[in-house]
Amino acid sequence: MIKEITGGVCAAQGFKASGIHCGVKEGSSPSKNDLALILSEKECAAAGVYTMNRVKAAPIYVTMDHLEKGVAWGVVANSGNANACCPMSHENAEAMCAFAAKATGREAEDFIVCSTGVIGQTINIQAIQTGLPKAAAALSAGGSDAAATAIMTTDTVKKEIAVSFDLGGKTVTIGAIAKGSGMIHPNMGTMLAFITTDCAITTEVLSELLREVAARTFNRVTVDGDTSTNDTCVVLANGMAGNELIEWKDENCQAFQSALEYVCRHLARAIAGDGEGASRLVTCKMTGARSEESAERLAKAVVGSSLVKAAMFGADANWGRVLCAMGYSKAPFRPEHVDVSFESAAGSILVCQQGDGLAFDEELAKKVLTEKEVIIAVDLHEGEESAECWGCDLTYDYVKINGDYRT
Amino acid sequence: MIKEITGGVCAAQGFKASGIHCGVKEGSSPSKNDLALILSEKECAAAGVYTMNRVKAAPIYVTMDHLEKGVAWGVVANSGNANACCPMSHENAEAMCAFAAKATGREAEDFIVCSTGVIGQTINIQAIQTGLPKAAAALSAGGSDAAATAIMTTDTVKKEIAVSFDLGGKTVTIGAIAKGSGMIHPNMGTMLAFITTDCAITTEVLSELLREVAARTFNRVTVDGDTSTNDTCVVLANGMAGNELIEWKDENCQAFQSALEYVCRHLARAIAGDGEGASRLVTCKMTGARSEESAERLAKAVVGSSLVKAAMFGADANWGRVLCAMGYSKAPFRPEHVDVSFESAAGSILVCQQGDGLAFDEELAKKVLTEKEVIIAVDLHEGEESAECWGCDLTYDYVKINGDYRT
Repeated sequence: MIKEITGGVCAAQGFKASGIHCGVKEGSSPSKNDLALILSEKECAAAGVYTMNRVKAAPIYVTMDHLEKGVAWGVVANSGNANACCPMSHENAEAMCAFAAKATGREAEDFIVCSTGVIGQTINIQAIQTGLPKAAAALSAGGSDAAATAIMTTDTVKKEIAVSFDLGGKTVTIGAIAKGSGMIHPNMGTMLAFITTDCAITTEVLSELLREVAARTFNRVTVDGDTSTNDTCVVLANGMAGNELIEWKDENCQAFQSALEYVCRHLARAIAGDGEGASRLVTCKMTGARSEESAERLAKAVVGSSLVKAAMFGADANWGRVLCAMGYSKAPFRPEHVDVSFESAAGSILVCQQGDGLAFDEELAKKVLTEKEVIIAVDLHEGEESAECWGCDLTYDYVKINGDYRT
Repeated sequence: MIKEITGGVCAAQGFKASGIHCGVKEGSSPSKNDLALILSEKECAAAGVYTMNRVKAAPIYVTMDHLEKGVAWGVVANSGNANACCPMSHENAEAMCAFAAKATGREAEDFIVCSTGVIGQTINIQAIQTGLPKAAAALSAGGSDAAATAIMTTDTVKKEIAVSFDLGGKTVTIGAIAKGSGMIHPNMGTMLAFITTDCAITTEVLSELLREVAARTFNRVTVDGDTSTNDTCVVLANGMAGNELIEWKDENCQAFQSALEYVCRHLARAIAGDGEGASRLVTCKMTGARSEESAERLAKAVVGSSLVKAAMFGADANWGRVLCAMGYSKAPFRPEHVDVSFESAAGSILVCQQGDGLAFDEELAKKVLTEKEVIIAVDLHEGEESAECWGCDLTYDYVKINGDYRT
């Protein structure tokens, strides 16, 4: 039984976090946290997945390097600057780890480092150097909120969750914070997501589980089709729950994976629903597919279509755009078999059957689509496989936010 | 020497056209033309390229069928309804050809048929039946404008062009009309483009040239990444210029191809610049590439990125998004070699050199980007190949137009 609890990224035993303002971005409000620190009191098995973008920010290379040994103690992360595509970016990412280590009495190699914000401007490393001792002093078991706000950019709500479940008589906890909003179309890794757990598990199993779970959660989100240069999702497991070490894909491993997927799915949906400028969370449920892969590709094309997204903003039951998006997804399907419905808390309405439009109640459709969460349900009538992908609507605010983000 | 002339799709000898209002869309303004007819006085060699979308509108299948014999006499096209994904769509597309044939004294198989508008609603075939005798009566050598306006949907300007050039002592003319605006991301064919010429050329050569030229022009345009179900580009060649028949890829063929590419490039740029809601034409020039294919893929990712498009709307020199889009394009390149400049009538400004950001004059950058036509110039410093792709900015109006297009 997976139970949601409070505490976010500090909910698991032995984790502390903090978030402070250090002034990474010139002229930023002193009330906006921009530097986050997460620290375990014991060494953690650690695994990460990263952006597939060919242009990777320096912190990703540094993190990959530090995680080669499969263990880590903490995370240092900033918002306000992506530390990507600028001189000294690699040195500055290393320096962030060194400053974090000095402030916490650890080694630079013990840290995962992440940055998010504008690309191509040199990061204000002095601000981070000055800030890290303060961040270290502020570390506490109640620090998840502050850390979650410190990694936000254009996010409008902070994203955190924690769950606990039983594993052979021991209570195991998984907690996490994440950020999303724009440049969100994770390909392999994702935006920023930091997951902590007190589960005892090997790095090998943890890495494999993270890859599998990220593929079914974060990688099924799209906000704008732009895969960022900085996407990173890491999980730290310090073993303090005292469960029998998970070394194999056994029943215990399955229980841990379910809880990890619960956490990641929650964050993925939160990221989609809080997409830049979004007014609603749009889920595409693709069922009756011949393979999960083709179901995923079709569903992702639907939630990624600018025209579908604009129609969702207008609460317009323009299902022709759903079929059109499926058609250019490059996944095989037979248009003449497809049923399309729109569903939400306000009801469900079938608008297309066997590829042809139905006469439907426009007023009911409008009501269904005006809800905060809308499902586009497509049945391919070809097989037993399915997939769900998440996105959001395309709004005036997306254009506004991105028409003048940098300056 | 290729010379621009007037007359549009009727500029070539022996072609007439018309455009009238027949009321395809309920409640549409009587002043909005919605039915176009183009007719040659002689049989034409004919070739077409079509959408690669798996969901194809019925008129495409009918046109493919009619063009199997490689000849045609004319085009019948409507706006206001896509005649896609609805019962009777195939029968109605055939009926449009039959009505056009009856009104002009030809056979149904002599016609190419196209529809553009909303997907999934049954077309008002009675309106078209009543309209076609009027359209036939209105056919004239001055009818290009009326036909061009009849195929417009959310287009704000009509797209037509004609050129003439010398071919072995004979003057050959190519004329064309097109429509674009939304759901524009041609994959193989394109939106609607009708090209007429009096050149004498075989169907085989014409087909090959059209494929090659479309790949370098229409297929390099993106407005919103959504490949339509109805994209069609056809060319009709009636041979009335009296030039020596083009049967091989010789010098004469080369001259014709250059003129055809001139026409298609003009229309492609016009379609990009008049993208739904667009306030500027954005060209990405990718140079220094190892292959034209990778240059094209990189350039297309840049003009297709929602974030780049929004930045262009805001005249924001956010070149990090350019690099980011290139990075997820799946084309190989070395980020550390890349130079990026923004160029326009107001000047040129280098913002990124060898993958790192430069300090630059923000005021000049703003001036450069505020022009109606903006070029994003990227030098990969890896080879001699290049490609140019065209798009537009992402604006409030795109969202407005597509948030409530259907109802």
